[in-house]
Amino acid sequence: MDDRDDAGHREPGADLIAELRAGLPDRALVADPDVAASYAHDQASLCAAGRPAAVVLAESVEQVQHVMRVASRLRVPVVPQGARTGLSGGANAVDGCIVLSLVRMDRIVEIDPVDRVAVVEPGVVNADLSKAAAAFGLTYPPDPSSWETCTIGGNIGTGAGGLCCVKYGVTAEYVLGLDVVLADGELLRTGRRTAKGVAGYDLTRLFVGAEGTLGVVVRAVLALRPTPPPALVLAAQFGSTAEVGRAVADITAAGHTPSLMELMDGTTVRAVNALANMGLPEHTEALLLIALDTPDPRAELAAIGELCTAAGAFEVLAADDAEESAMFLTARRLALPALERLGSSMIDDVAVPRSRLAAMLDGVAGIAAAHDTVIGMCAHAGDGNTHPIVIFDAADAAATERARAAFDAIMELGLELGGTITGEHGVGSLKRDWLARELGPVGVRAHQAVKAAFDPLGILNPGKVVAP
Amino acid sequence: MDDRDDAGHREPGADLIAELRAGLPDRALVADPDVAASYAHDQASLCAAGRPAAVVLAESVEQVQHVMRVASRLRVPVVPQGARTGLSGGANAVDGCIVLSLVRMDRIVEIDPVDRVAVVEPGVVNADLSKAAAAFGLTYPPDPSSWETCTIGGNIGTGAGGLCCVKYGVTAEYVLGLDVVLADGELLRTGRRTAKGVAGYDLTRLFVGAEGTLGVVVRAVLALRPTPPPALVLAAQFGSTAEVGRAVADITAAGHTPSLMELMDGTTVRAVNALANMGLPEHTEALLLIALDTPDPRAELAAIGELCTAAGAFEVLAADDAEESAMFLTARRLALPALERLGSSMIDDVAVPRSRLAAMLDGVAGIAAAHDTVIGMCAHAGDGNTHPIVIFDAADAAATERARAAFDAIMELGLELGGTITGEHGVGSLKRDWLARELGPVGVRAHQAVKAAFDPLGILNPGKVVAP
Repeated sequence: MDDRDDAGHREPGADLIAELRAGLPDRALVADPDVAASYAHDQASLCAAGRPAAVVLAESVEQVQHVMRVASRLRVPVVPQGARTGLSGGANAVDGCIVLSLVRMDRIVEIDPVDRVAVVEPGVVNADLSKAAAAFGLTYPPDPSSWETCTIGGNIGTGAGGLCCVKYGVTAEYVLGLDVVLADGELLRTGRRTAKGVAGYDLTRLFVGAEGTLGVVVRAVLALRPTPPPALVLAAQFGSTAEVGRAVADITAAGHTPSLMELMDGTTVRAVNALANMGLPEHTEALLLIALDTPDPRAELAAIGELCTAAGAFEVLAADDAEESAMFLTARRLALPALERLGSSMIDDVAVPRSRLAAMLDGVAGIAAAHDTVIGMCAHAGDGNTHPIVIFDAADAAATERARAAFDAIMELGLELGGTITGEHGVGSLKRDWLARELGPVGVRAHQAVKAAFDPLGILNPGKVVAP
Repeated sequence: MDDRDDAGHREPGADLIAELRAGLPDRALVADPDVAASYAHDQASLCAAGRPAAVVLAESVEQVQHVMRVASRLRVPVVPQGARTGLSGGANAVDGCIVLSLVRMDRIVEIDPVDRVAVVEPGVVNADLSKAAAAFGLTYPPDPSSWETCTIGGNIGTGAGGLCCVKYGVTAEYVLGLDVVLADGELLRTGRRTAKGVAGYDLTRLFVGAEGTLGVVVRAVLALRPTPPPALVLAAQFGSTAEVGRAVADITAAGHTPSLMELMDGTTVRAVNALANMGLPEHTEALLLIALDTPDPRAELAAIGELCTAAGAFEVLAADDAEESAMFLTARRLALPALERLGSSMIDDVAVPRSRLAAMLDGVAGIAAAHDTVIGMCAHAGDGNTHPIVIFDAADAAATERARAAFDAIMELGLELGGTITGEHGVGSLKRDWLARELGPVGVRAHQAVKAAFDPLGILNPGKVVAP
């Protein structure tokens, strides 16, 4: 008889706390069950979470190594966490786990304007890095909506995207090298700080988006870019999804590369009007915001406006300056709060090929009708990355069930259109079964083989991304 | 007693040929030992190669799967090959192997200007894809020097770079998804054709640069970009490495993003003069070529010229038009042929942080002197990716030994400067032991774990990248 459960994990107990305490300062260890429970969830809706046995607020690489050595010895699961702004349950606790929070490791170690790199600890807040880089005329492009609170470590874990990714790419494209504490506590250094490098397998990219299931990122070398000129925004209103889909396709096919191309559907626009009285056309079916951050964008922006009109836009307005541009973007920023006033929400994250955007919009409208559920649509239209936001009354079990079914139907639709179930939010536990469907059996086996190679005991964020 | 060697590989024999023949048309199988031997080498110098038992010129995914199933059953090593333009021995045969050439799988399946993707088979020649994309106003940026003959499959295998990568990135950044035949013959599909996607581990990037040691790429979804305007080139001559290093650093730190920033040292410039009578200054220590491909680059190019002058350039010349720009670039294209006239050559590929470029140049000059060996230097200066070209008389054993020692000393220097042993050519067999040194023991173990996860029998390009 021993005290392990079916999966071979030992029940949480006094020995775990004692062993953790042996290598940690008191302030780094939360053993009180109720306080620990407050670390159980990220921001995913309708996503189960377990009760942690302990929370460690690590302050150094050595402390992370200590935690992983103890966890390996006792076969206790470890759930790495950043700011818990994730939307897929990737940072949700599992029963009896150690929650390993990296938020206190928040030093910007270095910014080098010639090598154009930043070296950071994982707890650095995205916005703090942006501010620090700006002092050198540089920028760290990935800008998830939670950029003012989310951490670089969380961004790396989920492979986060954002608004400007249509031109500048997602987190993965800015991670040059990593320090990673492995399941057994060993420290692995991957990648490089050079602009180029192909020495061996790309383990750096393997850890980006792995949601802490392969190792714990404790340091990152990130690429920076010169700060672009302030963007100028154009707003176009469309009466149909087919028209806006055509506009997005035509703008791309004409060779334009906007720094932002955001779409809000009629439901979302009306919700924003209701919240903030923005005076947007109530009868719009799609508002498309397009920004250019080239040195003198007016002529190109006008050409884009003409493409919108040719595609059927009933109103096209170009901002005069950066201030007016910022005002246009306010509507986009208010989209989620505006929809959230209507009820509880689940945010989906399906990316489709750009050419299938209109089909995706129509399909989601059909899903909303079929499931008698309100769905507001925001999308990074230039990427084909849609965020259908399913609104429901959490106190109504039937409505909640319909919302969940609609959420699933959206992923099904995305796969049918040649897309992916997640463009930038990650898989976590929320979409694990859908990932298996997207990958197919050979893909799942390949994932399990990689997982087993790095985490043979299955203690690193178990149950996330791939099934045990 | 069986007929396996120490590594568990069966000796090549009649059963192998018979089993291969069972699933292949006659024209796809080369069993004649002498003809097969002509497929033994890529273009790496001083790099051992074994004798293949057979060469398969595969024409379909099914044929590749057949080869891998036979190879798994008989435990015969398989060496995937493209156009054999590689410079690290990654495509060199091992004794008794099946050489699996993908050059006949050369279809461009699709180019989609809205999704901005190309779907290609691995045998497509890089230049052919560029031409096909140009018809849509698009471009496939990675442009290795061998672009007119090398294949996309080989580019993916090595993670190839090129001249324009300083602005547009290397092969890895353009590979969205792959079809890969695994060691057991199963077909794995990775990645996506959407602009964004974080569904599961980034297996796509794991296969890029893996040199066929983890699987055989049989299809790729590649990102394309709008064709930029023709570039305008500026040429600056420097009297010292410190000056050119400062110029490169200052240009980058000022926020410029050239589409090309190439350097040739004095040895190389004089060799080019000797070959082509270009009239370049004989007393130059470094020629720096800088291109901009923005819509109207003249003002920015002038500003870059002033930075060069301020850094010490004794001559700065800007091209008037695309034609004159092309002429400037001829010097760069002649660099390797010019140096190769001086003797046999080994091309190194060390990338250092951009800020260490001058230190790298000085160090290589010191290595040339210390080893009594001519070394010409070309570099993708904007990337810090240097190609020291070690010249030697292959008929002189002592000179050859000195060249090899110099080649190694260059990698040692690169690592000391915080760089990597390979920026874009790959590891192959030539640099395998050096890779182990760059990775360290934890990194090597991680590589071996990944290799074992995908190739448990060790039949995929054994001995390349990681030691068995």
